[in-house]
Parts: sequence; structure tokens; C-alpha cells
Amino acid sequence: MAKAAPAILTIAGSDSSGGAGIQADLKTFAALGCYGASAITALTAQNTIGVQAVHGIPPDFVSQQITSVLSDIDVRGLKTGMLFDSGIIHAVASTLKEHFSNNGVIPLVCDPVSVSTSGHTLLHPDAIDTMMDEMFPLACLITPNKSEAELLLRRRGFPSAINTVQDMVTAAQNLSALGSNAVLLKGGHISIPREELRGVVSPDIEVNRDFIFDQNIEILQAHNSENATNELVVDVLFIKSEGKAILYPRPRLVSSNTHGTGCTLSAALACVLGRNATLAEATAQATSYTHLGIETASPIGQGFGPLNHLHSITKSLIAPRRKGDPFPLTYSLIRNTSAKWSKYVQHEFVIQLGKGTLERSSFLHFIKQDYHYLKYYARAHALLAAKSDNFAPILAATRIVLHIAKESSMHTSYCAQWGITKEELELTPESSTTTAYGAFLLDTGLQGDTMRLIMVLAACLLGYGEVGLWLKREAQKPNSWVVWEGNPYLKWMEDYSGEDFQNAVKVGLETIESRAAADPPSASRYAEWLAAWERCTDLEKSFWDMAMNLS
Amino acid sequence: MAKAAPAILTIAGSDSSGGAGIQADLKTFAALGCYGASAITALTAQNTIGVQAVHGIPPDFVSQQITSVLSDIDVRGLKTGMLFDSGIIHAVASTLKEHFSNNGVIPLVCDPVSVSTSGHTLLHPDAIDTMMDEMFPLACLITPNKSEAELLLRRRGFPSAINTVQDMVTAAQNLSALGSNAVLLKGGHISIPREELRGVVSPDIEVNRDFIFDQNIEILQAHNSENATNELVVDVLFIKSEGKAILYPRPRLVSSNTHGTGCTLSAALACVLGRNATLAEATAQATSYTHLGIETASPIGQGFGPLNHLHSITKSLIAPRRKGDPFPLTYSLIRNTSAKWSKYVQHEFVIQLGKGTLERSSFLHFIKQDYHYLKYYARAHALLAAKSDNFAPILAATRIVLHIAKESSMHTSYCAQWGITKEELELTPESSTTTAYGAFLLDTGLQGDTMRLIMVLAACLLGYGEVGLWLKREAQKPNSWVVWEGNPYLKWMEDYSGEDFQNAVKVGLETIESRAAADPPSASRYAEWLAAWERCTDLEKSFWDMAMNLS
Repeated sequence: MAKAAPAILTIAGSDSSGGAGIQADLKTFAALGCYGASAITALTAQNTIGVQAVHGIPPDFVSQQITSVLSDIDVRGLKTGMLFDSGIIHAVASTLKEHFSNNGVIPLVCDPVSVSTSGHTLLHPDAIDTMMDEMFPLACLITPNKSEAELLLRRRGFPSAINTVQDMVTAAQNLSALGSNAVLLKGGHISIPREELRGVVSPDIEVNRDFIFDQNIEILQAHNSENATNELVVDVLFIKSEGKAILYPRPRLVSSNTHGTGCTLSAALACVLGRNATLAEATAQATSYTHLGIETASPIGQGFGPLNHLHSITKSLIAPRRKGDPFPLTYSLIRNTSAKWSKYVQHEFVIQLGKGTLERSSFLHFIKQDYHYLKYYARAHALLAAKSDNFAPILAATRIVLHIAKESSMHTSYCAQWGITKEELELTPESSTTTAYGAFLLDTGLQGDTMRLIMVLAACLLGYGEVGLWLKREAQKPNSWVVWEGNPYLKWMEDYSGEDFQNAVKVGLETIESRAAADPPSASRYAEWLAAWERCTDLEKSFWDMAMNLS
Repeated sequence: MAKAAPAILTIAGSDSSGGAGIQADLKTFAALGCYGASAITALTAQNTIGVQAVHGIPPDFVSQQITSVLSDIDVRGLKTGMLFDSGIIHAVASTLKEHFSNNGVIPLVCDPVSVSTSGHTLLHPDAIDTMMDEMFPLACLITPNKSEAELLLRRRGFPSAINTVQDMVTAAQNLSALGSNAVLLKGGHISIPREELRGVVSPDIEVNRDFIFDQNIEILQAHNSENATNELVVDVLFIKSEGKAILYPRPRLVSSNTHGTGCTLSAALACVLGRNATLAEATAQATSYTHLGIETASPIGQGFGPLNHLHSITKSLIAPRRKGDPFPLTYSLIRNTSAKWSKYVQHEFVIQLGKGTLERSSFLHFIKQDYHYLKYYARAHALLAAKSDNFAPILAATRIVLHIAKESSMHTSYCAQWGITKEELELTPESSTTTAYGAFLLDTGLQGDTMRLIMVLAACLLGYGEVGLWLKREAQKPNSWVVWEGNPYLKWMEDYSGEDFQNAVKVGLETIESRAAADPPSASRYAEWLAAWERCTDLEKSFWDMAMNLS
């Protein structure tokens, strides 16, 4: 069973167009692997052009939603967005306060939303003081943008114009006096020339250069047709307890896909903080996620379009391993090649062998060619050992080589029972079908990585395991067409259905499944695996055709 | 710019706990790569135990939300869930009807939600007829479960008890008379023994066996400790225009994580239909997604927990390629090894070379060892050609071998200018540092796939490209420490900063970036790449240490 995703609760408005509000939050939570819950404070009928109507929710009902979630689900992070009016703010603050005092504090990111990207007022002006007084003291972080910060500072008598990096640092510091543990002052609406950043030097100011990293990447700059902009966006984190500001500068993006940027950022912060990251780490990760969301957005709607919330996820090709299906890769390979797989494992050769009616000459031809094939099979495992970079896989592959060598001597004595001498075995010319299959294994080993080689080696192992088990199961049915006792090929059936071989099958299954789970394939890699698997079933079928045709 | 995700609109209730309603829908849309929008009909304060309170939204405001979305966003699929009361149903139906008549029909999946998993009534009983009369005719598909289907049938005077597969087929057929284009009767609450399915034979009934595929998978069954259940869940799709039923049987899951199953299924259906799939394909994909969501769920809350909506996605390790960063893999590799990368590309050897103060003996030692290294570098490209499976990559690698061979003769004449004869070059013993680096390339080619070999070959190419460009850029600055004209090593600097070599750098960048984008690495594969890259920077640094130490 998968590890439970951390649950995050957003308390915010609803944006019908899906780009902002709880919709942006839920998308962000999903993209960052968190479980999302939501308490809605107000509904908006809105789109990328503007807000057409707003419907506030009664404060008691907002509280009830929060209580329903917190009383049942182990929430690890919280964010608040649009809180609409004083009544709701009061309800939210008192519900959270009570929960915190009874159950411990949950990291809360308070996004002091007051105006939408499209210019619509989202918070009644008289509610701003209530938010500062009641919400900020509960928050580990508040995330105002320029206009929100200026509004908050103005109301508390601080100097409020924010136009330079130094203004931002001062503003963040002043904002932290309003009650929250830390402040992230977002720089999206302030353009900072690169030179200005160089001027910021102070022991209390740290600059995170991860996002304007330009050390020794002359080649990347020279071969990128897009010239790096000189304009930066700088987000400023001020942590009150440390008296320290951290700046996160990034190249400024020119984009109209900014609807819901603030919602997305605070949602991402709640996710990262919900996984117990520091404020500095959370800011780095959440601003990256948001920045990339703007940068990779596609046009949606006719106004300020939404971010791309899904840039950081890709579709899995193989279902997770689970009780009901511990072998999802193998299942998928067999299902996707089912017609060919059937032709292989239920080949006429196998059926006649099960009935005991198979021509002796066909069987003899088969076991002679199988002797040659086993040499390739051993060599391919030796190649696997040579390609492996640690003792466990080296040893595992080498043990199989030893096992095949032992099997070959058993094979020799088995052949002797059929009147074939060792010398005759060695002198039997190798059929081109045998060469095709054997050389295919070695070529696969040359071309690809260890997983691809393991895949084709497993296809052979699993196919013979399937044939053995099938014959045995069929033999156990009443009035079976399979003749068990007295069948001239009984030993062959016993070998492949027996414990030794089936143990090897089990190890083979476990190996490919655990490797695929640890290194999940992309679509193109899965296609390669499927092609290799399919080729093996073709080659196996040809091997039995060869036996029947004595070719 | 990424292709825009298809936009899907859900018209449904809100579930504060996030497992059902528009929250489940938005999570499903995200997991299936769609853009989600939502019009909320009612809020619930609920959790996994039950529904604590409901707040209906005024019908006009529901209409306004739908209009805001549909008037701005190109919606490709629709679903309705909880519609709460007659007023809302009427508002939704008339808004959609008007939009359809002016703008064409959008596939609409109507989930006739009336009772929650926890037993709470979600639709006023008098609203059921309104839903049938007004919504069903607009829907391409309705998705009732057993109790909803029985309720609908009872109200229209049809026989209503549904307990067998045959009952289900008849019920689905009768339900299709209520106005929708097709019916998906969900079987989650009806247990069907495997034998019963075998009895269903009719030219009008097709059985999709993809999910109970059991052909020639004896090995998977034998080695799975979990015994396959005999009980099936069967979903029945009835397509009115074709007069045909398709059954989708699956092994029955025992799970309490079923909160929001119906919402999730109808949301997934809307996504697949929004991509223009047939009803049959959409049902197969959407039921699979939902089934796996139940099967992989982790415990959340104390009652009927939610599905795992995120089972089909994995986190991307590399950001998408975009204008501002067309080389995200290389950028990430350099940034994640920045200290070592700097020590390599700004090595003392390079600095002294740029100043023109490098000891002649060091330079001579370097170019003699470089001659040996070039042989490995050529062989590694030949190995790359041998590992490639198509003419384009075979040719690309072979051209580089030819280029290196040509470079080696230039190298010989260059050495001659420094007084080193071809014979002396050949007789110079290979330093162990040269062997380490060269053999590392070949070993990487032996162990891994072509991408891993290309990665290490590129690391060398890109590093020399970086050194060349850096020296050239530095030389262009006023009062530069780099001596260009008159520098004894001018030709070396010109070569690596020159057009020919930089074109190769550009091709190298494009190759690794396009391959990484086409076959995105898993976390473990990215870790391998990073390790190989880091190893190269170490080996390159050692190579210059060797030159300085004359070792």
C-alpha cells in the first residue's frame, strides 16, 4: 500500500474558471503529491476576463466545513486565501485557534488576498484589520504581493511605497511586526534590474542564487537563442525569529498567464511546509513550482489565463504493484501481446508433447538445438554479470550461468537416454533459428542497459514456466487431454512445472517487477520493452516451428 | 509551449473533505491531464464519516458560474454530479441547452447522484423527475449505481430489482428509454459470481475481458499469494443507437475507500470523452482509473476513505524544455555538481593557459596524453554506433569517429609545431589518468544504454566547449587577464571557442536534451546520469592535474 499523501486544507474562495481559488489549490496539492481538502468561503462566477458575481458563504457554514475536515483527517498544512469579510475571518480564526489549542499547531500560510489579478476587490476593506488582528498571529507565513503589502503597511502607519529591493526588505521586516512568524513579500509586480541586486549587501540579507545560477554555463547561454533578461523578479522572505531576510531572484517572465499565481504559490508553500521543510526550503520549492507554472502555461480563455499546474507530473505507464496484481509489468506485457504469447505457450509442439504424441524426431531436434541455445543463454547471463556494477547483481547473474552449465550436463545425460551422445550433440549444426534467438539475446545485451537484457532473458524463462504450469494444470483436470503418467516426455514436463524451475520463475518475475517499480519506464522505454518482449515470443514460437519442421 | 490540456467542466457539489464532489473531479481531471473548471451547486460540510451540513446555492448563481466558464473557455467535456434540487436542475439544464443550441453539443456525463456513500440524501426526491426530464436528454451518458437505477426505474414504472447480470442489462436498456444517449449502469453494489458471467450469451451483449484477462497467465496466478476472487463487479454500458450492451467485468475489491467513487468515474469519463474517445473506450479507461484508485488508496479519515486519485502520475525530475531554458537537463546537471564543474572548467591549467604562462612541459604532456585519450573517445563513439539500432544514430556516431580521426591528424601536425614527432606521440606511455578516463567511457558504454554513453561523451565535449567560450569571453573584457594575441596557446583557445567546435557543442546539447525529453528519466535513472556526469568532471579535473604535475 502506498504511503499516504500528506493532507493539506485550503480555506478560500471558489473560482469557477479553475485558475485560482480552491481549484488552483487542489490542482497544486495534486501536482505536489498531497491530499487536498477545502473549506469554501465564497463562490465566484468568474473567468479569465473578470469576476462576474460573488456569493458569500455564512460564517457558521465556513466553520462547519473546517471542523468537518480537521475532526476527521490528519491535516499537515493549511492555507487561507480569499476570506471575503470580517464575519468569515472571525469564524475561520476562532475555529483554527480552538483546533490549534486542543490539537497542536498546524503550519498555516495566510495569503492576504484582497484584489484579484483582474482588479476585482476580493476582501471588504473593513475586513483587512480583522485579518491582521486575528489571522496573522496564527500564521507561520503571510504572502502579500506589492499592492497588498502597501495596503497593510499603510493601515498600520508604516511607510508603504515598495519599488526597490531595499524597500522590499524593509517592507517585509515591517510586515512581520503585524503578527505572523514570517513574511514572504512577492515580487511579481516589481521589476528589479540585475545591477540593483548586486548592490544589496548586508549580513542580515542572504541571496539565494539558485534561480539566477549563471556560473560556468557559457555554453548554455551562447546556444540559447533567447537572450537572458536583465529584469528580475525578487521574492523576499523575512523570518522574524532569525531577524534575517532571504532574497529569491529569478529572471522576469513576460506572460499573461498569471491568473491564480498567488493562490498557487501559497498552496505550494502549504504542501512543502506540510512535509516539514524549513521556510527557506519551502519558499525555494514553491516559488519554483509557481514560476514554472507561468512559464509553461498554454493559452486558456481570453484574458489573464491560468498557470499550468501539471508541469511537474508525467503519466505512469505501469500500474503500481498491489496485492491483487503484484506483477503489473508482466501482466501488461502479456496482455499487450496476448495473441502472440498464446501462439508461443500453447504451440502445437507443446500440445503434442502434452498428449505424448509428439514425433520423437521433432523432440530430438528440439533438445539438440536447445543444447546450443543454452550456450547463448549462459553467455547472455555472463554478459549481464559483466554489465552489472555491484556484487549482488554480479552474483545473481553468475549463479544463473553456473545453473545453466549444470543444466547442460543434465541435458547431456537426458539426451543420452534418448540415444544422443555428447559428441553428436556437439556436432549437430546450429539451426539458423537457434542462432537468431541466441544472437538476439546477446545483441540486446550489447545495445541496451541491464534491464533490457533482463527483460528478454525473463521472457524465455517465464514462457517455459508458463508451458510447464499449463501442462501440469491441464493434466490435473478430469479426462484431461494431457497424458502425464506414461508420457514419453514426462520428465520434460516435470522439470518445467517443478519446484526448482518455478522458483527461478518467481525470482525472474520479482526481478523485473521490482526493477520496473524502482525505475518506472517512460512511454518510449515501455515501448522498447514491449517490442523486445514481443520479439522473444516470436523467436520462441519459431524455435518450436523449427522443431516440428526439423528445419 | 505545451499542447493545451482539454478543458472539462464539472457541475456538482463541493465536498469539504476532498474525496467526492468537485474536489474529486478536479483531482481526476488533473491526474488525467485535463484542465478543470467547476460550477458549484451546493456546499457540503462533510468528512469520511458523514455529511454534517449542506448549503444550497441559488439557481441563478449556478447558471452564472456555468456561463462564466462556457463563455470564455473552450470546454471539451462536461459532467454533472449532485444537482441538489429542482430549481438548480432547471437552471443547469436551460443554461446548457442554450449553450448547446448556440455553440454545438459538448459531451455531457450525467451522474444522477441521489444518495452519498455514507447514506446521506443528496437530491430532493421531487427533483428526480426534473433531472430525468431535463438533464437526461442532454446527456450522452448517465451513470447510475444500483440504488439510483432502481429509484429511476421505479418512478417510471419499470421493473426495478437489479441483482443479476441479466437484470443489469435489462435495467440499462430500460434506463436508456429515459432520454440519454447511453447508460452506464455501475455494478459496484452488485456481486456477480464468475460463473454467472459465463451464462450471458447474446448477439447484443459484448463482454470486454480486458480486466479479467486470464489467458496463459498461469505463472502470474501461481506466484501471486493472493487468490483471485470468484466475485466480480460488472459495469454495463448500453448504447441506445446501437441497441448493444457491453459488459466490463472486474475482480471485486474489498475496500472501505469508496467515498467519491461515482464522482471520480463520471469525471474520468468526461475527460476521456473530451478527447473524442468512443463511449466503449471511455468506459474502459475511466473504470480502470477508478478501480485502481480504490485498489491503491491509503487510509484517510475514520470512515469511508477517499480513492487515491494520484496513482497514475509520477513526479518529473527534469523541468520541461522552454524558451527561457531549452537545456533543463544540462542546466540541472551543472547546477547539481557546480563546485566540481567549476574546478574542472576553471582549472589552474586553463587559467595559466589563458594567461599564456602555462609551463610548456605541462602543455606538451597534456597534448601527448590527449592524443591517447582521443583514441578512446573515437572508440567510444564507435561503440555507440555499434549499440545503435537505426541508420541516423549509427551515422551520427560514425561521423564523429571520422571527425576525431581527422582531428588526430591535425593533432599530430599541431604537436609537430611543438617539436613532438608522430613517433614520439605513439611512444609516449599512456598515463594511468588517461587510461582511467578512457576506460571509464568504454565501461559506461558496456554497462548502460546509448543515452548513458551519450551523457558521458557529451560531458567531455561540453566541458571543453565551456572552457573555450569562457576564455574567449574573458579575453574580450577590457584589461582582461586572458592574453589572446601573442599567447603561445592561441590556436588551442581558438579551436575550442571556434565555430566548428561550438557547432558540435550545440549538437551535443540538443542530443541529450531531446533524448531526455523523449524518454524522461525516473528518479533512479536521473541519479545514474548525475553520477556519471559528476564522475566525468572528476576525471577531467584529474586530467589537467596530471598535466600540471607531469604525472
